[in-house]
Amino acid sequence: MGKKEKTSFQLKTPKGTKDWEGTDMVIRDRIFSTITEVFKRHGAVTIDTPVFELKEILAGKYGEDSKLIYDLADQGGELCSLRYDLTVPFARWLAMNSSIKHIKRYHIAKVYRRDQPAMTKGRMREFYQCDFDIAGEHDPMLPDAEILRITSEIFESLGWQGKYTIKINHRKILDGIFEVCGVPTEKLRTISSAVDKLDKSPWEEVRREMTEEKGLDPTVADKIGTYVNFKGGRDLLSRLSSDGTLSANPSAKKGLGDMMLLFDYLDAFGVLDKISLDMSLARGLDYYTGVIYEVVTEGSAPASTGNTEGQKLQRTTKKEKSASADVDEDRSADPTVGVGSVAAGGRYDELVGMFSGKGQIPCVGISFGVDRIFSITKARMEKENTKAVRSNEVDVFVMAFGGKGFTGLLKERMEVAKQLWDAGIKTEFSWKVKPKLPQQFKAAEAGGVPFAVILGEDELAEGKVKLKQMGLSEDNPEKEGVMVSRDELVAEVRKRLKNLTDGLDEAAQMVAELKVQEKEDVPGEAPAIPTVS
Amino acid sequence: MGKKEKTSFQLKTPKGTKDWEGTDMVIRDRIFSTITEVFKRHGAVTIDTPVFELKEILAGKYGEDSKLIYDLADQGGELCSLRYDLTVPFARWLAMNSSIKHIKRYHIAKVYRRDQPAMTKGRMREFYQCDFDIAGEHDPMLPDAEILRITSEIFESLGWQGKYTIKINHRKILDGIFEVCGVPTEKLRTISSAVDKLDKSPWEEVRREMTEEKGLDPTVADKIGTYVNFKGGRDLLSRLSSDGTLSANPSAKKGLGDMMLLFDYLDAFGVLDKISLDMSLARGLDYYTGVIYEVVTEGSAPASTGNTEGQKLQRTTKKEKSASADVDEDRSADPTVGVGSVAAGGRYDELVGMFSGKGQIPCVGISFGVDRIFSITKARMEKENTKAVRSNEVDVFVMAFGGKGFTGLLKERMEVAKQLWDAGIKTEFSWKVKPKLPQQFKAAEAGGVPFAVILGEDELAEGKVKLKQMGLSEDNPEKEGVMVSRDELVAEVRKRLKNLTDGLDEAAQMVAELKVQEKEDVPGEAPAIPTVS
Repeated sequence: MGKKEKTSFQLKTPKGTKDWEGTDMVIRDRIFSTITEVFKRHGAVTIDTPVFELKEILAGKYGEDSKLIYDLADQGGELCSLRYDLTVPFARWLAMNSSIKHIKRYHIAKVYRRDQPAMTKGRMREFYQCDFDIAGEHDPMLPDAEILRITSEIFESLGWQGKYTIKINHRKILDGIFEVCGVPTEKLRTISSAVDKLDKSPWEEVRREMTEEKGLDPTVADKIGTYVNFKGGRDLLSRLSSDGTLSANPSAKKGLGDMMLLFDYLDAFGVLDKISLDMSLARGLDYYTGVIYEVVTEGSAPASTGNTEGQKLQRTTKKEKSASADVDEDRSADPTVGVGSVAAGGRYDELVGMFSGKGQIPCVGISFGVDRIFSITKARMEKENTKAVRSNEVDVFVMAFGGKGFTGLLKERMEVAKQLWDAGIKTEFSWKVKPKLPQQFKAAEAGGVPFAVILGEDELAEGKVKLKQMGLSEDNPEKEGVMVSRDELVAEVRKRLKNLTDGLDEAAQMVAELKVQEKEDVPGEAPAIPTVS
Repeated sequence: MGKKEKTSFQLKTPKGTKDWEGTDMVIRDRIFSTITEVFKRHGAVTIDTPVFELKEILAGKYGEDSKLIYDLADQGGELCSLRYDLTVPFARWLAMNSSIKHIKRYHIAKVYRRDQPAMTKGRMREFYQCDFDIAGEHDPMLPDAEILRITSEIFESLGWQGKYTIKINHRKILDGIFEVCGVPTEKLRTISSAVDKLDKSPWEEVRREMTEEKGLDPTVADKIGTYVNFKGGRDLLSRLSSDGTLSANPSAKKGLGDMMLLFDYLDAFGVLDKISLDMSLARGLDYYTGVIYEVVTEGSAPASTGNTEGQKLQRTTKKEKSASADVDEDRSADPTVGVGSVAAGGRYDELVGMFSGKGQIPCVGISFGVDRIFSITKARMEKENTKAVRSNEVDVFVMAFGGKGFTGLLKERMEVAKQLWDAGIKTEFSWKVKPKLPQQFKAAEAGGVPFAVILGEDELAEGKVKLKQMGLSEDNPEKEGVMVSRDELVAEVRKRLKNLTDGLDEAAQMVAELKVQEKEDVPGEAPAIPTVS
């Protein structure tokens, strides 16, 4: 930075990127720490991979979306690309570290896609992903159940009680359905992809794709249609299991067995009431091999659809759909997160082998759409007039006052600040030699600082300062503050800070602040939220 | 990721980058959270800028080091480069947000340099920077003093008591010295750059550069030599102030006045004993306009120099230097951090104007060399055999045992885990239907989990479980664990966890774990640590 000449720059961030600042940054950090706390509660560790990978590591992993990969310029040496997601770097890491046979890892980091940005819709070229995965051989469905428990804990911790549903399905059940309906083996995946579109397209359209584009026999398509609209809980599972044709199919039988076991485990974990078994859930990515899931919430569906009957919505015509909210525009930039979903994932037992060329490590994971969770949280806070989020965390503002000949008591303010910092108390004071008292109060109020320590010459001479809680009502006996001795200041501040939080620990406080309006819980059987947009 | 074919990749991270994992990741996270806690204690906020900037924003900022900037490939649209540091993005942000007149911001993030990596020496192409800056008009030296207080708090919090020294100087004092010694105005900056090399080169060599390369009159160089070897505290400041020639120089006078004020403030903040006024400190970057500083520590100097007299070391010949530790190789990849320093910064009042083209925003800041702090911390922990760092934070392992016909008590283990998770207690259990008891104990021990909750059928029938602290000595009455009722389990676990931490809060615990061997404090006057390598 040797030059001092002024240069005229285009002052902006690159297209599709933004600076995070102010209360947005605070809300985002709280969401991250809430999520991280849950991961740690389950013994997870984190790893941090480079923001770019060798180009060949990413090549051939994302199908036609590969065109969205950012490459680094060829400045000599290796060819590299910015990471497109966190899954491929994790699989690369597992393959490189073959001594690691088991891990629960989370990773919250930015990923990069050269997509057409739609900033107002939250589709960015640089955005955060938050992934949690369990790798390793374990007894069936135990890691899968724990991931769903973790998912539930995260949304409960974010204060979304009763406002989310975890849709689940199983690739092997789906494959079994396709087989008993008569889908030829070579068409299994492409028909599965068509079904996956049921979350944004009506059945008629999906049926047309199956029959006209993919050449499926219309009677086969109609049979599929009777299955994929099923939604429910244990009752649906029993109904499917007692379907003689279906349970005679080995793939479906395996999937149904897994699902029975999973439901038992989810019951023991107390999360069964958040679950909706949904036969229309297929998930786009090819690599899933077992249970798959997607979390939907009110806010994650387009705002214009007031209809609570998912089934009905699913039947809207294409024209109706286009006339409603810009569904496609509203789609998260993250293809691993479906339309209207805030988290998604599943079991992928064969991905790591793509890298290692050696043994497979079975994996199951979930990706949280943190940018979308952020937008929903922020919108709810605004709608519900949640108490303004503070951009810093200062607890005490040290100020001084005095009459004629007021010196500013700067050194004294510094010494009191030092005393509080030494005790770990978050403290500020005015960086003015002779600040006016109203200015100091204004600064404390602007920052939402809960306590003022006010210094006056006479009081200091007696070894005392005034401790005042900001914003007390007129009739509060401590409205004007209380005199405390310098020796007892730290203890008095601590006591009052503790009272202020009313015995809530920091986590609970965070939740309370982020908490959204309570709502009656919805049984898994008939979700009151539109599961399809 | 549509393909399932196995492909043979070169399984590595790009040159100069690495994966962070295991206990390294835990130590690094602790360092970051210790630092962040101090920043927040002083009311700082954080902002997050994109990892790449428009190429033109970075152009012309880094002199000949510009060749080290990573560019993104031209894939159509804007030309972008990966950020090279966090200062230029911050200045760009300030210039873009001209309504912001004051901010204390910190930013901990990765930066990118296409330098020749020296992995074993810690010089990476992707590495972390941790910057703290105060922007805005304030009364003189108050933000500067608070930054040095923050710096001191950070190293104290990291457990480096008595192991670090903050070297400070002032650009205006240096300029005054150069002027009174007779350096022509047009040579001020280049002579300052030469002085800056005193931290890695002996005076003879710097003198040669001044006279032979830069054409300075040898008598002028010798006069400079008498000044730049001064080191000390208030006494040195008084000596310089009473130097009639020097204090008659307007620049020096201004600088000495600032420094007097700063010393008063540092005294009030209780950090004066960490400070060493050092006339040889010049800092490489041109943009500093006031006070400058650098933090050095024992570990940041090459291990082979047992000599504690900095002065003497400074006089070693080039040959001796080359024969000792690879000084240049050991230099941090971050040029803002000098040889052997762990943090560095200063006041830069004219940088933001380079972007805004409008008004200036005066700034003062510091950058912490977190990768170096990490390496030193880790080396000390290894040397001192610090209790192994746990890679996860699990507090309770729920296990089961039974004789013949043992069912594994899986559902019961899940229910107890649920009970503990619901209470926010970090808990794991074996993902086996019928695990053996020794395997479960082994898993808990391997993870360093402090408590086991052990389920047995008979005990469960009575509504009880066994709670056992791991690793108690043979004579401890609770060695075999205690029986507690299911209803009281959460309370009992919490009580014991609290006892375990012995009243230490998490921050104190962290410090205790990271804490290095205590050592006698060293007065600022004669630092016992080699300030020059």
